[in-house]
Amino acid sequence: MSNPFFKNQGPLKISKIVETLNLKINSYKDKKIYDIKDLVSSTNNDITFLHSKKYNNAAKKTKASVCITTEVLKTALPEKCLALIVENVLVSTSKITSIFYPDSINDNYDETAKDIKDTDFKNKVSFGKNVLIGNNVSIGNNCKIGHNTLIERNVVLGDNCSIGSNNIIRNTLVKNNVRILDNCVIGKHGFGFFPTKKTNLRYPHIGIVLIEDNCEIGCGATIDRGSMSNTIIGKNTYLDNQIHIAHNVKIGENTIIAGQVGVAGSSIIGDNVKIGGQAGISGHLKIGNNVEIAGGSGVIKDIPDNTKVMGYPAKNIRDFLRDNR
Amino acid sequence: MSNPFFKNQGPLKISKIVETLNLKINSYKDKKIYDIKDLVSSTNNDITFLHSKKYNNAAKKTKASVCITTEVLKTALPEKCLALIVENVLVSTSKITSIFYPDSINDNYDETAKDIKDTDFKNKVSFGKNVLIGNNVSIGNNCKIGHNTLIERNVVLGDNCSIGSNNIIRNTLVKNNVRILDNCVIGKHGFGFFPTKKTNLRYPHIGIVLIEDNCEIGCGATIDRGSMSNTIIGKNTYLDNQIHIAHNVKIGENTIIAGQVGVAGSSIIGDNVKIGGQAGISGHLKIGNNVEIAGGSGVIKDIPDNTKVMGYPAKNIRDFLRDNR
Amino acid sequence: MSNPFFKNQGPLKISKIVETLNLKINSYKDKKIYDIKDLVSSTNNDITFLHSKKYNNAAKKTKASVCITTEVLKTALPEKCLALIVENVLVSTSKITSIFYPDSINDNYDETAKDIKDTDFKNKVSFGKNVLIGNNVSIGNNCKIGHNTLIERNVVLGDNCSIGSNNIIRNTLVKNNVRILDNCVIGKHGFGFFPTKKTNLRYPHIGIVLIEDNCEIGCGATIDRGSMSNTIIGKNTYLDNQIHIAHNVKIGENTIIAGQVGVAGSSIIGDNVKIGGQAGISGHLKIGNNVEIAGGSGVIKDIPDNTKVMGYPAKNIRDFLRDNR
Repeated sequence: MSNPFFKNQGPLKISKIVETLNLKINSYKDKKIYDIKDLVSSTNNDITFLHSKKYNNAAKKTKASVCITTEVLKTALPEKCLALIVENVLVSTSKITSIFYPDSINDNYDETAKDIKDTDFKNKVSFGKNVLIGNNVSIGNNCKIGHNTLIERNVVLGDNCSIGSNNIIRNTLVKNNVRILDNCVIGKHGFGFFPTKKTNLRYPHIGIVLIEDNCEIGCGATIDRGSMSNTIIGKNTYLDNQIHIAHNVKIGENTIIAGQVGVAGSSIIGDNVKIGGQAGISGHLKIGNNVEIAGGSGVIKDIPDNTKVMGYPAKNIRDFLRDNR
Repeated sequence: MSNPFFKNQGPLKISKIVETLNLKINSYKDKKIYDIKDLVSSTNNDITFLHSKKYNNAAKKTKASVCITTEVLKTALPEKCLALIVENVLVSTSKITSIFYPDSINDNYDETAKDIKDTDFKNKVSFGKNVLIGNNVSIGNNCKIGHNTLIERNVVLGDNCSIGSNNIIRNTLVKNNVRILDNCVIGKHGFGFFPTKKTNLRYPHIGIVLIEDNCEIGCGATIDRGSMSNTIIGKNTYLDNQIHIAHNVKIGENTIIAGQVGVAGSSIIGDNVKIGGQAGISGHLKIGNNVEIAGGSGVIKDIPDNTKVMGYPAKNIRDFLRDNR
Repeated sequence: MSNPFFKNQGPLKISKIVETLNLKINSYKDKKIYDIKDLVSSTNNDITFLHSKKYNNAAKKTKASVCITTEVLKTALPEKCLALIVENVLVSTSKITSIFYPDSINDNYDETAKDIKDTDFKNKVSFGKNVLIGNNVSIGNNCKIGHNTLIERNVVLGDNCSIGSNNIIRNTLVKNNVRILDNCVIGKHGFGFFPTKKTNLRYPHIGIVLIEDNCEIGCGATIDRGSMSNTIIGKNTYLDNQIHIAHNVKIGENTIIAGQVGVAGSSIIGDNVKIGGQAGISGHLKIGNNVEIAGGSGVIKDIPDNTKVMGYPAKNIRDFLRDNR
């Protein structure tokens, strides 16, 4: 997991971690843990988590020193990995991630933002009225930023980007020749939390939004940043107005998405895909390359390459039209 | 009907009321009427309205001195209640409500709004650039208000609220620990009017929006205030991005609503309900507690407690999946 | 095609046109061409285009001096009309339109916009904070413009218009007594381009948005301007929140459209039509007068006058309800 933007507050002693989880252990208390990562990318300086036997194979090979898991699942872990036994692995993982990355939980307005006229960008960028720039922003050559747009903390804009008016962008890496029209909110945290009775527990979103070269993002888009991975819009992909892209979604190259489409969390969409207006795509799906999804469709399962689908639930377009004469 | 925000221009003499409706009566002309209310909550200082025999039982017991109704319906009213006979009860009621509450008809921009730096809130609230505050606003402790946000007339914010950037809020009561993200419009009038050929007749919206403790409202939400009652979002309910909640809707506690969902006017949604992305709920429905509505569903009838539904029209999820293999 | 807003950079010599298209011709090189128009409205000073045999009849009668077309189609043209033979007529037409109207391709933020306080409108219009006005704007009597609203280049507002806050309007003609609520983007280019592998080719949008008397446009609307014709909202038509109207759409009078509806490009909707929430209408359709479309419907073919439809694909409402008991 690349993490260019959120500051890691580690290392933390294991004693601090177990205390946060209301656990007791007697050994390794003073060992320092530097980051929280998934099973595969962890090193022996990291803590990881295992919440489903689906990941047993990855668990067997993990290099992590510590793993948040359950009594039942812990048998899959290597002997040298210290298992921290909890009731709810994801809630506990969320708590520990929050200590490493406290900035990634809530998206309050950016208090570091200041008028672009009071920054060095004033000589480099073409900008409208009331443009604000937060900390840790970099902007390439020949960019335009429209009126009332907020470039909040943790944004990189490449060269030749045209950002319209009334946009809010944070935690986002924009490559070259990208056009973002008006009224978008890009890079806020996703709709991810653990429901609890009195006050839901938000989990951290330490991913970013990555918008590749030559993309166009229409008016009123919301593109949420990833939780543990990134949200990605591939090269030369065009989004029409009022589109919602949830956290961790990955969209390929040369894809065209019409107005009011919504893509739920963690779905992956291929290259050269065409999605008609108001179509919806459920979470955690894989949509292949060269797929065409008719407007208004509701996609609730994976779609192989080179397929045309329609309907709710979406099925082969010929079948749908035959069944709905 | 509690009405904390809209100023009542009453009392009005009955003679003024009948003149407005182009009626003629000979008695009671000088009696003063103080407010317009529904059949149940009216006192003998008020005017009410009866437009359907569905409400005959309430009509029989009303304490109102005057009632707008039709020749046919008036027989249900108590003898001491003066019946004003009109062709269209709702249009006439709208006209009279407009005289009592002239501010509630149109939502022009708030001319009373001024820079927060020119108000007493500047020492109490953490705020971004270009934040405006209208008349009759109160704000609790430890609140944040983001850049370009307009807190227009008639807003109460509780403690520990985080309001993002580019929001417009009016006629809204927000309790404690509420988070409103970016780009929302909350508290404007609903989509309610009487269609007429040359220029539609808007009816007044004298309700408010009430957002209870611990709620989160996603980016780009539109939540309209009520017409005669309030629009309510219950405790610890979370709304994702691009959601539309129409006038008079009441949502319970601990409910979770995913992106791009729309709820039409006057529907009531229970506690612990989960609604998937892009689902739509028609007006005047009752959705029970612990209901789950699959993404993309179109709900057009009431749903009892503890039910899972899917499809358009939404039906039991097992039936839907069986019929759509 | 009336074209009040986009400045025609013609006349162009034919030699310039053929060079742009990488063609070679030997005659007429120095003849000047003044505009690009469709087959019917062209005069002998204009260039036109023919991309389908559907238009052969119009082609036979065209008065244009030059026509972009293919080897196969050119036989339909009059002898005196010079045929420019290209591989892709629409791409070539797009390139030539771009030379005549270079301002119509990209919608960068309006650099001409200045604070209304620095314009003559300050004495005529009631306005909020941070209102900006671009070049070539005219505003009638008794208008209101809310906070942070951008009236960009090429806008005409009639009398008694109420424009809310946070709106962006450009290339739009608004008649009298129109109400535009908050957070809308009106008049930007449509979602029209030729997909190509590395970087899509946008085609010019030289149409405008025309909003007739007494309309109301809800919060969060996006109404795109036309490409070769205009996008039109008819008299006394009301739009609820979060509606998307694509380029070239024409909506009749006294029509009512509920929240989150989307209308795809070039569709025509009649008078007195009612469209329920979240319904979607595909492109290039004709919806008759007095049609009712139930909420959530997906319309994929023409609908005759006086019809009620429901479902996806939308069909007669009685049939739909019978089939979906």
